[in-house]
Amino acid sequence: MDRLQQQIAFVIELDKLKSILRRTKPVGAARYENSAEHSWHLAMMAILLAEYADEPVDVGRVIQIVLVHDIVEIDADDTFVYDEEARRNKQAIEAAAAERIFGLLPTDQRDHLMALWQEYETRTTPEGRFAYALDRLLPLTQNYHNAGQSWQENGIRAEQVRRINAPIGLGSQRLWTQAQAFIDDAVRQGFLPDVGAPEG
Amino acid sequence: MDRLQQQIAFVIELDKLKSILRRTKPVGAARYENSAEHSWHLAMMAILLAEYADEPVDVGRVIQIVLVHDIVEIDADDTFVYDEEARRNKQAIEAAAAERIFGLLPTDQRDHLMALWQEYETRTTPEGRFAYALDRLLPLTQNYHNAGQSWQENGIRAEQVRRINAPIGLGSQRLWTQAQAFIDDAVRQGFLPDVGAPEG
Repeated sequence: MDRLQQQIAFVIELDKLKSILRRTKPVGAARYENSAEHSWHLAMMAILLAEYADEPVDVGRVIQIVLVHDIVEIDADDTFVYDEEARRNKQAIEAAAAERIFGLLPTDQRDHLMALWQEYETRTTPEGRFAYALDRLLPLTQNYHNAGQSWQENGIRAEQVRRINAPIGLGSQRLWTQAQAFIDDAVRQGFLPDVGAPEG
Repeated sequence: MDRLQQQIAFVIELDKLKSILRRTKPVGAARYENSAEHSWHLAMMAILLAEYADEPVDVGRVIQIVLVHDIVEIDADDTFVYDEEARRNKQAIEAAAAERIFGLLPTDQRDHLMALWQEYETRTTPEGRFAYALDRLLPLTQNYHNAGQSWQENGIRAEQVRRINAPIGLGSQRLWTQAQAFIDDAVRQGFLPDVGAPEG
């Protein structure tokens, strides 16, 4: 295959991310959202909210990181952020997914996408940390505006939401303050329980 | 509302683009795709195919243009690219949509998104022309890999596909050559008729 044929095969492969479902529903919609439309939503947030990053960030790179960060789910599927055991076990599966999927591309572009994905995973750069913060902030914000839909469906408590989403503060203190205000108000409104043991 | 509240209200408004359906199905999927996941797919193509742009392009700006270009559909709905009468009539509706939706944002960001959208609409810059080329190339490529699904469902003929997609060549001759190869092969394989009057 020549270079363009490899690139087109990859573009067609990407269609599969549209069938990877998350636990969150778009606000007001009756269905679960998929990881492709979620990635678009994050890229829009990067454009709009980069001004709140605590360290200077290259917005264009944040955008590319969030566009690419979920592509491994084509093979590895989405892992619910509150499923802490599944999250511990996913690393090897996602690494193999990255090898196969990005490996469809010419070498230079495989390396480019691999680097973007690893930047999200390791959060060793300001752009990686801010991308990760957005990826936590978005479903929390959707849940807050959707009467706690995925929290309610999965028996999630405020303590978990605070703990799992605290890394927002590593990207932006301002956005973490906002996230905590959503959590506190969700508790007040009664759709996010603040006490009780984890459901089993 | 303070600045961040306006931005969050806009982010939540964006969820509606996930319910705007296009005529194309993701390759291998049983449902129609929506304009949010389509916009993500285009942004990925921009990263991968910018090297084929005939004029030098700022890839970051192409990405932002394709991320933003369909947001007006939240109010104006998607217009099928082969429905030429609907396309002639959509300008005023989309302009009003842009005013309302981008107007949810602080003024500086409203102006930024409005400029990106107009760059797509007017195609007066290399980035606008290349973004438009990608937006034509993607559904054509999906159709070619999906046995002509939306062409078949809507009685589209090869002459229309060639004429409507010729602007790909204004962004990239290499990509237009590739698109024509897909069209010719679709005709050969029998899922894109090359003759006959438009259905009516």
